[in-house]
Amino acid sequence: MFVTFLSDYGEQDEFVGVCRGVLAGLAPAARVIDVTHGIARHDVRAGALVLRNALPYMPAGVHLAVVDPQVGGARRGVAVACADEERTLVGPDNGLLMLAAERFGGAIEAVDVSRSPWRLEPVSATFHGRDIFAPVAAALARGEPLAAAGEPCAVEELMPLMLPSADRRPGALAAHVLLSDRFGNVILDGTHDDLTAVGLRLGDEVEVVADGRAHRGRFASTFADVDVGALLLYEDAQRQIALAVNRGSALRELRLGRDDELLLRTC
Amino acid sequence: MFVTFLSDYGEQDEFVGVCRGVLAGLAPAARVIDVTHGIARHDVRAGALVLRNALPYMPAGVHLAVVDPQVGGARRGVAVACADEERTLVGPDNGLLMLAAERFGGAIEAVDVSRSPWRLEPVSATFHGRDIFAPVAAALARGEPLAAAGEPCAVEELMPLMLPSADRRPGALAAHVLLSDRFGNVILDGTHDDLTAVGLRLGDEVEVVADGRAHRGRFASTFADVDVGALLLYEDAQRQIALAVNRGSALRELRLGRDDELLLRTC
Amino acid sequence: MFVTFLSDYGEQDEFVGVCRGVLAGLAPAARVIDVTHGIARHDVRAGALVLRNALPYMPAGVHLAVVDPQVGGARRGVAVACADEERTLVGPDNGLLMLAAERFGGAIEAVDVSRSPWRLEPVSATFHGRDIFAPVAAALARGEPLAAAGEPCAVEELMPLMLPSADRRPGALAAHVLLSDRFGNVILDGTHDDLTAVGLRLGDEVEVVADGRAHRGRFASTFADVDVGALLLYEDAQRQIALAVNRGSALRELRLGRDDELLLRTC
Repeated sequence: MFVTFLSDYGEQDEFVGVCRGVLAGLAPAARVIDVTHGIARHDVRAGALVLRNALPYMPAGVHLAVVDPQVGGARRGVAVACADEERTLVGPDNGLLMLAAERFGGAIEAVDVSRSPWRLEPVSATFHGRDIFAPVAAALARGEPLAAAGEPCAVEELMPLMLPSADRRPGALAAHVLLSDRFGNVILDGTHDDLTAVGLRLGDEVEVVADGRAHRGRFASTFADVDVGALLLYEDAQRQIALAVNRGSALRELRLGRDDELLLRTC
Repeated sequence: MFVTFLSDYGEQDEFVGVCRGVLAGLAPAARVIDVTHGIARHDVRAGALVLRNALPYMPAGVHLAVVDPQVGGARRGVAVACADEERTLVGPDNGLLMLAAERFGGAIEAVDVSRSPWRLEPVSATFHGRDIFAPVAAALARGEPLAAAGEPCAVEELMPLMLPSADRRPGALAAHVLLSDRFGNVILDGTHDDLTAVGLRLGDEVEVVADGRAHRGRFASTFADVDVGALLLYEDAQRQIALAVNRGSALRELRLGRDDELLLRTC
Repeated sequence: MFVTFLSDYGEQDEFVGVCRGVLAGLAPAARVIDVTHGIARHDVRAGALVLRNALPYMPAGVHLAVVDPQVGGARRGVAVACADEERTLVGPDNGLLMLAAERFGGAIEAVDVSRSPWRLEPVSATFHGRDIFAPVAAALARGEPLAAAGEPCAVEELMPLMLPSADRRPGALAAHVLLSDRFGNVILDGTHDDLTAVGLRLGDEVEVVADGRAHRGRFASTFADVDVGALLLYEDAQRQIALAVNRGSALRELRLGRDDELLLRTC
């Protein structure tokens, strides 16, 4: 059985290692795949997007995810079964798991694991990854039934995750910054259909207006289609529309931040 | 058999990967768990504290640790058996292993592995992780006896590790910065009993004096108990007392550094 | 079967995790060893050097490597069998694999995998690690024959990798910066024989001239042979000559950059 693991714990400290140790001790036969631990601290939305994007490439199994700014507070911990592919998500009930659940047909069963019989006692107030989520993931990976993980809860009550959405305006698409990667590539909330609807075609020159400043780029297939240092609008490997600067950083050069609105149009 | 691995090698270079390769080649059946490789360069004390904190959550086995500022110099390499749980520690004899050894009942057998028959020849002057410690860990993980790892040495001669200790003064606890994590949470050398002894109770407002400046916070259970941006004194997931700023960095906001002395008192 | 994996993807994003997921899904029995994912972005030469240095310590198997600035452009993807040790390299045909291939006796068979039958469709323009290289590595790790990976191509047509070379001048060696590590240790393109040829002996004081500034150091065996803060010239763990500052950074203190020329001589 595979357990995948995503968090905002980073690699600098021992938090990830301790969770790996707990998993290995409680489910020695499980295989752990680290998705990433580089989610920006407390950025639940970034974690949710990355989880949704990555899990389709992961073998089905138990998917542990921890980005948990309210650890120790009132938010619940949950384990959630998805409609498709026998995938079970484990983590805080703060929206982190919800985009991935949608991706796999929606949540069909949810359990509140906050007081799971599998938790490690005494549960600390600050490290539920170690004390609750990893032990629950390990037990599920051993084949324990989801219903035994804690108290049942209604899937309708799971905390949703809100995303901005792109807006088709006359002659332009108003899109927003969802996420960026370490290369400074910037993922937007529009789709290829949105671009088509506002008249943008592959190969077109495109004007990108950000914070009152206009930038020129090209709607291209890949980095190699534009000069080094040039801006491109493209469909990324997840079929999301994105901005990049070939061998540079669109995030930095366009001075973008999360949720910033951009206008995209032909020129 | 599990081999855990902690170092200050970082993830940027291939040092960790090369040690993983040596372990895989010499002990193909062993399972390697990375504790962390993000210990600050040459910070033996930080490595020792993290090792002590993390190993109780790791399955018993061989525990490889390398933070080794005197590599190639006179310090010995050692393999150390602990009294409890059949745990064996492998690394430089510079104090790195000693807090973990204490945690598991103390060292009961030690072997100088500097010229171990299992070492990779020629031994480089700068990379004993690859040439000595990983091969020794691999052989032990295969089930070779500790006594065959090198020359016996007296456990009393192992290099100890000194830590500062908190000082109960009239109406205040003088504590010191032991360690910080990437979130800027700061671990101190006092205990919950020390706080009680100087009159601090959970829920109290607390004054923290650092470098002549006084800061106000609360003695709380968890981050969610204080406002965003507020200072809290708490017992961390390792039952150590610690300072944090909710969604901020206590390290940066209080301008703290290693071994800095802080006064903690009610207000 | 072992699959080793090196890239410039970094640990911050999910790129490495997604490739791990693809490998696990397509070759569940394969064991994946991460060499490093910290190669500087797009630095093919650094990737090639690190791969050559690390692979001799890795068990033989499939060696996946991705540093791929021209992804989506005209460069081919290749799988390359080496003469020695049944090692197969998989990655872009941009020189990345060539130093490792030389290290193992040279390439004896090469296959263009750009349109491999094992690729994941639709192949993205920007993430061939996921869509081409990991699936090809997985199939080879399952035991599929190299010839089935794609179209045969001549090993003579593989893109070579050019390195600077040290120059023995009267009384001095002109060497160049090949690579540095996160400690600021700087690897040069000379050999121990080059140093001997220009009259440098172990233990000698050495003058290092960089960008018109002269620095004093010692030709030593290891860090511990010089004072803290002092410069040393040494043979590193890969038997390459290198510069370091004991507990400091030679890269920063000598203000060095890639390909910079240095003069080394006795003084």
